[in-house]
Amino acid sequence: MLTTKNKVIIYAQDSFGGESAKTGIGFIRYGICETVAVVDRKLAGKTVSDVVSGLPKIPIFESIESAKKNRPDADVLLVGIAPAGGKFPLEWLSDIKAAINLKMNIINGLHDFLENIPEIKELANKQKTFIWDVRKYKGELIIANALLLDLPMQVVLTVGTDAAVGKMTVSLELAKAARKNNFQAEFVATGQTGMMISGNGVPIDAIIGDFMAGAIEQQLLKVAKKKCDFAFVEGQGSILHPAWSGVTLALYHGSLPHKLILCHKVGNKYLRNTKIEIESLNQFIKVYESVSLPLRNAKVAGIALNMQGFTNEQALDAIKKAEDETGLLADDVVRNGGEKLFKSCLK
Amino acid sequence: MLTTKNKVIIYAQDSFGGESAKTGIGFIRYGICETVAVVDRKLAGKTVSDVVSGLPKIPIFESIESAKKNRPDADVLLVGIAPAGGKFPLEWLSDIKAAINLKMNIINGLHDFLENIPEIKELANKQKTFIWDVRKYKGELIIANALLLDLPMQVVLTVGTDAAVGKMTVSLELAKAARKNNFQAEFVATGQTGMMISGNGVPIDAIIGDFMAGAIEQQLLKVAKKKCDFAFVEGQGSILHPAWSGVTLALYHGSLPHKLILCHKVGNKYLRNTKIEIESLNQFIKVYESVSLPLRNAKVAGIALNMQGFTNEQALDAIKKAEDETGLLADDVVRNGGEKLFKSCLK
Repeated sequence: MLTTKNKVIIYAQDSFGGESAKTGIGFIRYGICETVAVVDRKLAGKTVSDVVSGLPKIPIFESIESAKKNRPDADVLLVGIAPAGGKFPLEWLSDIKAAINLKMNIINGLHDFLENIPEIKELANKQKTFIWDVRKYKGELIIANALLLDLPMQVVLTVGTDAAVGKMTVSLELAKAARKNNFQAEFVATGQTGMMISGNGVPIDAIIGDFMAGAIEQQLLKVAKKKCDFAFVEGQGSILHPAWSGVTLALYHGSLPHKLILCHKVGNKYLRNTKIEIESLNQFIKVYESVSLPLRNAKVAGIALNMQGFTNEQALDAIKKAEDETGLLADDVVRNGGEKLFKSCLK
Repeated sequence: MLTTKNKVIIYAQDSFGGESAKTGIGFIRYGICETVAVVDRKLAGKTVSDVVSGLPKIPIFESIESAKKNRPDADVLLVGIAPAGGKFPLEWLSDIKAAINLKMNIINGLHDFLENIPEIKELANKQKTFIWDVRKYKGELIIANALLLDLPMQVVLTVGTDAAVGKMTVSLELAKAARKNNFQAEFVATGQTGMMISGNGVPIDAIIGDFMAGAIEQQLLKVAKKKCDFAFVEGQGSILHPAWSGVTLALYHGSLPHKLILCHKVGNKYLRNTKIEIESLNQFIKVYESVSLPLRNAKVAGIALNMQGFTNEQALDAIKKAEDETGLLADDVVRNGGEKLFKSCLK
């Protein structure tokens, strides 16, 4: 597992600029240790801040070897992409082997587990480095049963119009804001990036269908023992995206949230890789509330807008528009922090 | 795989009377080969028709040995229970070994795979018998993408107020009724019993979350190649049951149905093992329709009532009441066949 002392190289060959690089970007923003380099030959010579504004000037290299030469202290290679489907590109294996031969530890969040490749596992054993396949679920396989009903802890789940709209970031910023307001708050990771950042959580989309809801339920029972006031659960997918809706609903019903925060990326017109139109925020509020378990009757409390690439003025406009449409508080937490949206969770 | 010539003993030790015996009962009713005995020491001496009216007088024995002694031609032991969570009771293993030593093949639909137990696998190899772990998914792991949108085939999905209310039976009876009306129709199994009966399908609740919807989508693409007019997809779980809702929704969105048939067991007041009240049929119609993908806008076309244990008069009353409440056609397909509900799919 990671400690604050590790030095990380993010591997995102040919991908760092794109949407699938959200793992790498999330780690740079919230990881518990320093990211010292990124590998992406297409962007070699630039820095991370050239690609994503607001992030530090971390240099980008064309290869693991050149990154490691520049930062010999780097000891972790983090596979920093999250492609839909989570397949590990086979052409990357030789780079992974090269990294292990350079005595680096490997963190991999894809559905394909590196530990299951005998060649890689043997090499890591030989070089005495670790492999952390984040999505390998090691918890018990049990079904959910609305066990969270009588806990005093407030559960806030981020839900989205789509995948990759910023649900993890919103949950992290809400937890930060809650702590600022002197509440005991926990971020509960459910995806690879969140788990890499927080060092625990459940890889919900990598669990067998029947046991997804039970896994998050068990995780929240553990969190509740810490006597926290708020658990901010990282949401997944979208209730109307055929590829992920099952995971979305299992997480929703398994975590039995009191409040939902609807996350949306401004400018998205269609659900990722489909012809399904995103009609309005109110459309999604209605659907999410309609499938709430009658036991809890969860309501959308606020709107989190992802305004990456827009000006501050445009962000202000979009926030006002969202508030007018929905009658709820809205904000961009990357720009403004989570304070305002956290207030919506207190109502 | 099973052929029409196999002779089956259903193993349901201490369980044949209960709800979890639905696998055994479903197989007796629809299996492609004869069931010659049931094992349940609590009911030994009775016949299947004493326990479930309308089923044949198959004798029930206290042990595999006594059943096999009575029917030396029996060559398959079918594990005939479906407990929530799908765990294989460890105390049954010695019976499974005894059956293999009697040269029987084993069919197991639980989440725990018998093939993964070295001792069992070696014994089966030695005795030259097969083990079919029905829930072991062997298809490709890919995500769904609304690929069924432009197919001419009509997809009808059974959905339920709860698990174990008769969705498989309804789908089978609808397929039968469609064929009687000279349509080309396929039953598409998604659960262990349906797969045992039809010899194919996808064990949807045993697939990793991210790939459930993709699995049923791929299965339906295959079915569509047979140029059938109707695909009747066996539904799973309930959209409002925390233990199964993720599987339910993945199946719903992955199969992109044109029509839904809502299945309900008359007399059920609460969702299985929970305090969640079943308020009304209209409540479930509303929730199922609200999460329909906008691309397809699936509607509930009819209501299938499970009236096991009720009189014909009570059934008539319940059917009328359901029709009055919902304004849709309703029927009990076990009592009356699928003709009437199939008509609701033609509208």
